[in-house]
Amino acid sequence: MRNVVVTDPPRADAEDAARLGELGVATVHEALGRVGYLGPELRPAWPGARIGGTAVTVLCWPGDNLMIHVAVEQCRPGDVLVVATNSPSTDGLFGELFATALAHRGVRGVILGCGVRDVAELQEMGFPAWSRAVSAQGSVKATAGAVNVPIVLGGQTIHPGDVVLADDDGVMVVPRADVPRALTAGQARIDKEAASRAAFQQGELGLDRYGLRDQLAGFGIEYVSYEEHVGGQ
Amino acid sequence: MRNVVVTDPPRADAEDAARLGELGVATVHEALGRVGYLGPELRPAWPGARIGGTAVTVLCWPGDNLMIHVAVEQCRPGDVLVVATNSPSTDGLFGELFATALAHRGVRGVILGCGVRDVAELQEMGFPAWSRAVSAQGSVKATAGAVNVPIVLGGQTIHPGDVVLADDDGVMVVPRADVPRALTAGQARIDKEAASRAAFQQGELGLDRYGLRDQLAGFGIEYVSYEEHVGGQ
Amino acid sequence: MRNVVVTDPPRADAEDAARLGELGVATVHEALGRVGYLGPELRPAWPGARIGGTAVTVLCWPGDNLMIHVAVEQCRPGDVLVVATNSPSTDGLFGELFATALAHRGVRGVILGCGVRDVAELQEMGFPAWSRAVSAQGSVKATAGAVNVPIVLGGQTIHPGDVVLADDDGVMVVPRADVPRALTAGQARIDKEAASRAAFQQGELGLDRYGLRDQLAGFGIEYVSYEEHVGGQ
Amino acid sequence: MRNVVVTDPPRADAEDAARLGELGVATVHEALGRVGYLGPELRPAWPGARIGGTAVTVLCWPGDNLMIHVAVEQCRPGDVLVVATNSPSTDGLFGELFATALAHRGVRGVILGCGVRDVAELQEMGFPAWSRAVSAQGSVKATAGAVNVPIVLGGQTIHPGDVVLADDDGVMVVPRADVPRALTAGQARIDKEAASRAAFQQGELGLDRYGLRDQLAGFGIEYVSYEEHVGGQ
Amino acid sequence: MRNVVVTDPPRADAEDAARLGELGVATVHEALGRVGYLGPELRPAWPGARIGGTAVTVLCWPGDNLMIHVAVEQCRPGDVLVVATNSPSTDGLFGELFATALAHRGVRGVILGCGVRDVAELQEMGFPAWSRAVSAQGSVKATAGAVNVPIVLGGQTIHPGDVVLADDDGVMVVPRADVPRALTAGQARIDKEAASRAAFQQGELGLDRYGLRDQLAGFGIEYVSYEEHVGGQ
Amino acid sequence: MRNVVVTDPPRADAEDAARLGELGVATVHEALGRVGYLGPELRPAWPGARIGGTAVTVLCWPGDNLMIHVAVEQCRPGDVLVVATNSPSTDGLFGELFATALAHRGVRGVILGCGVRDVAELQEMGFPAWSRAVSAQGSVKATAGAVNVPIVLGGQTIHPGDVVLADDDGVMVVPRADVPRALTAGQARIDKEAASRAAFQQGELGLDRYGLRDQLAGFGIEYVSYEEHVGGQ
Repeated sequence: MRNVVVTDPPRADAEDAARLGELGVATVHEALGRVGYLGPELRPAWPGARIGGTAVTVLCWPGDNLMIHVAVEQCRPGDVLVVATNSPSTDGLFGELFATALAHRGVRGVILGCGVRDVAELQEMGFPAWSRAVSAQGSVKATAGAVNVPIVLGGQTIHPGDVVLADDDGVMVVPRADVPRALTAGQARIDKEAASRAAFQQGELGLDRYGLRDQLAGFGIEYVSYEEHVGGQ
Repeated sequence: MRNVVVTDPPRADAEDAARLGELGVATVHEALGRVGYLGPELRPAWPGARIGGTAVTVLCWPGDNLMIHVAVEQCRPGDVLVVATNSPSTDGLFGELFATALAHRGVRGVILGCGVRDVAELQEMGFPAWSRAVSAQGSVKATAGAVNVPIVLGGQTIHPGDVVLADDDGVMVVPRADVPRALTAGQARIDKEAASRAAFQQGELGLDRYGLRDQLAGFGIEYVSYEEHVGGQ
Repeated sequence: MRNVVVTDPPRADAEDAARLGELGVATVHEALGRVGYLGPELRPAWPGARIGGTAVTVLCWPGDNLMIHVAVEQCRPGDVLVVATNSPSTDGLFGELFATALAHRGVRGVILGCGVRDVAELQEMGFPAWSRAVSAQGSVKATAGAVNVPIVLGGQTIHPGDVVLADDDGVMVVPRADVPRALTAGQARIDKEAASRAAFQQGELGLDRYGLRDQLAGFGIEYVSYEEHVGGQ
Repeated sequence: MRNVVVTDPPRADAEDAARLGELGVATVHEALGRVGYLGPELRPAWPGARIGGTAVTVLCWPGDNLMIHVAVEQCRPGDVLVVATNSPSTDGLFGELFATALAHRGVRGVILGCGVRDVAELQEMGFPAWSRAVSAQGSVKATAGAVNVPIVLGGQTIHPGDVVLADDDGVMVVPRADVPRALTAGQARIDKEAASRAAFQQGELGLDRYGLRDQLAGFGIEYVSYEEHVGGQ
Repeated sequence: MRNVVVTDPPRADAEDAARLGELGVATVHEALGRVGYLGPELRPAWPGARIGGTAVTVLCWPGDNLMIHVAVEQCRPGDVLVVATNSPSTDGLFGELFATALAHRGVRGVILGCGVRDVAELQEMGFPAWSRAVSAQGSVKATAGAVNVPIVLGGQTIHPGDVVLADDDGVMVVPRADVPRALTAGQARIDKEAASRAAFQQGELGLDRYGLRDQLAGFGIEYVSYEEHVGGQ
Repeated sequence: MRNVVVTDPPRADAEDAARLGELGVATVHEALGRVGYLGPELRPAWPGARIGGTAVTVLCWPGDNLMIHVAVEQCRPGDVLVVATNSPSTDGLFGELFATALAHRGVRGVILGCGVRDVAELQEMGFPAWSRAVSAQGSVKATAGAVNVPIVLGGQTIHPGDVVLADDDGVMVVPRADVPRALTAGQARIDKEAASRAAFQQGELGLDRYGLRDQLAGFGIEYVSYEEHVGGQ
């Protein structure tokens, strides 16, 4: 691993990132063709947060938060800090003091491929965090890593400057180049979902709305009455 | 797997199901002799929900929610949708649009042996859901499964029309034939617990109340003072 | 296993235990040199509880809560009940009736290396509990264990009379002999954190505050501009 | 749970069971339409065993092997013992002494939804076992369960007398009524696989052999050269 | 954590340790009353090894094997190296070069609460290892820990000089003071098992041999014929 | 996801890939600075295989092996097939028939981020496979994916044409551009390890060989005799 801090990577637009955050993870994920989701293991430290921002990426050694100290200085308003460890670890590399420093810099939240601590304090100060674990386990500052290099988290590659969205459904990444498409497709999906919601509220069925009913026989699906089914066993 | 949709299975009484839901999972599970619990992996999408209803069962291919679309049409007021996948999957096969359609049909909640998404929206609309994961991961509609066949979830077999209860302690199934016994035994247990609670509030010990004290010697349990114990090491 | 109930072990001071609970798990863990944390698997049954008390330890057979009944009688005001099982189990060995009996005795909470049930009721009555799982699975009373012997939970050895702290960040143990040091070091850390917090709120960086900046080159960390970095690949 | 030992359930034919075992788990699972597999968590205690037999089912309390003692007496030549626990447990409820007793009775192997011990001895004596864990953890004989009732293991319901197959790929169940169909379809699949194997050995592609090539466009799959693909990014 | 290397702790007798190793983990665990087992997560790097030795304990920071280098020097003939990490980690802190150094010193094997690498080479040189994972992930030498202090691994406390046994069934600890009792009780159990084995080979049942048959009714166990049972449902 | 099959991506040299495979995963991982390892979850289907080849990458829908059929045609001698699924799945997407087709094309092995089946047959034919699970669970061919696009597996990004190495220690990726450096550094490490091995065989300590002894005091490590240590507690 090259122990490098990359300065001033180009970032997606911070307003675009915020707008994607409002559209929400499930919607943008679907709109882009079901890509970019970081999986069910990253959970919010407290419920109800919803953010979108530009990624500052950090790669730490397990049990060591030296590089988060380094990364704070690289953060700007509109950023989201995204931390991976070099091998699996649940240690609480991040807590309320880091959040205080990041909030001062206008950072919108943190995504941790490890543990988080001080969750009551984070909720109280309203600083959003997603993590693989809650853990009070403390860390050393003894081994180098990297800042603003591409990292892998939750089965996705995240480049510095990409947009990261997170809410109660989890976390996703939108590559910087895909932001315009994500905004357009995300809004289109919001509109489509609103129409479907209205239809479902009046009793229409997805089978009909999505044209699935005619395909059922082709899928080999048969309808049988309970009596037939039990009798046939 | 026979790709079949079984229509109109007989169901337990919807009022009985609601009453069992009020008694609660822990109580009914104990009352029936500690059977029917679906295990600790099924967790509520939001806290505080408490339901009982009649099962409409769905078997889906992993990553595919086609059969949930099919199942919606089979649901009636008082039902609970119960979804298993053919192999382990955490994908979010169910979200707010499905919940809208089910709420319109009087369905009381959903139990998902996979993931759920739109959890903030589900809480806002008050639609109860229990699942193995929260995941925004979207799904296709490409492979057949079955509706209203017996399924296995959380180590229990669930038949269509069985009663399914769920609250913050998890999910359990009461086979349709056992509902009358569950109502009687559940109410008896509620009464017994109320008496125990009152006794414990006044300082009685379970050792005495449950007649355990006299059995301790038979279990081979000895009492020793701390000094004896430390000295004897 | 010797099936023994050790009576009246010496305990740390109950007020000291309460004070350590106020300082919090993350703070005391750091203050003592990053020791004593029981790991991320023990989670609160409901958010917001924060306790410190003296341990009454219990060792149960999996699926069996006989020894918790025995242990209740050994509890005094200021205690925390700490339950381990002899092999891994998620069963809900503890619920609202036990909590009622313990609350009557002035017990401050329970730590369960297994499952907990009745979580809605526990929250309503304000009885704090941490556990490895939420599970309605009921238990028998058929096999002996031990009370107030040293137990291992979450990778830590807990002796009866030790102080156990728990909050939203998890659970930790402070050996009885270390309590005075924990109080002093914990308060010192609170003061140090307050100063750091104030500094970070005004924009100071951890790199500078902790004297890390000068060490970065020694760690082999280089700063490169984005253009250089991308060009160099 | 009704604590019952059901005697002399009807069994599938022992020779049919052996023949299905020879066909193998993967083959019979596919031949029946991809049903009946008990999942990847059940692993062989030693490699190379391959069995088919008729199920004698056991339901044990976690940490307790009383009912295995009861079940041994119910076993006949050609049987396979199948053990589930009432809640998750990895304890080693079964070892070499049980295997000695079962081998004397002509039992073909054991499937354990818990742990196994004495694995070196089991391999030496050639007694096949599949389990969720290897564990030396010993058990008590203190709590009742059931023998020859339907049990759930690995997401499948197993009735006494059903055929259970197991090899290095895991374990599956064939319901007694499906045995004739499984034999016919399994043999047909063996023949089909032999033909495919011969074709693949000579370079034919599955795309052509299974008629997939013409469907690719319909699936929305495009072929692009590397240059185009990289250029288009 | 006090970063200390404790030199020359008293050790159990190396021949006694070897003899306990020959008796085997499952036997000694039972003989001592089912205590001391380190659980199913510690698995052998290669099958067939069987050791007993005196523990040299190591506590490492995750991702860091500095203290193993320190510990090698503390090892004597007859020792077993036992490594825990301060928080959960699967990194491969130990490989063939360490094994070479330890073999030279007469060390009998290694128990790793983390990962192991070079497993093919370890098997080739016949150096026994048990671990929580196999992982090639390399480590740094940057953070202090401790040698020959009590550590917790697999839910057991291990003191330097205790006997550690390991075979294909896993790993267990025998406290130094319990070694004489373990030898006596272990040999007694071997003899008892030999008698049971001979009886079972001739068809005796555990129900009779262990006097369980008369207790079954007391456990509430009923025998019913299949016809009765199915008819009664 | 764009459903694309990228044809003829540039590949690393097949002989270089084979040479890296001989150097081994642990060695090359260390030599490159501890990067590229795919983690402990990918395990060999049978012990003793050791390969290096050029990646043909596949992205499948869970439970669906359509794209593996597509990918076979893209494989050349010296390749290794690397399969990821779009969300977590243990299904056995790959077995002996695929191996037969790949062996005919000179493919050196397969890496599966899902399950593998027919493991006995794979061992018999000598076709190497690494996977996250062994599972007989069969799959459909109903949903598109991609071939020869960058995929993420085990926390690493793998591009088509990269070198993939695998042996009993797991799997690693060497980006195509890093192959020359990996060959040089890997060979240098082999030489260095040989020298260390020889030194360790003669009793030299790593503390001395790696110059660690002088740093111990700087790490805060103290040596104390057992008597001092126990007395000081």
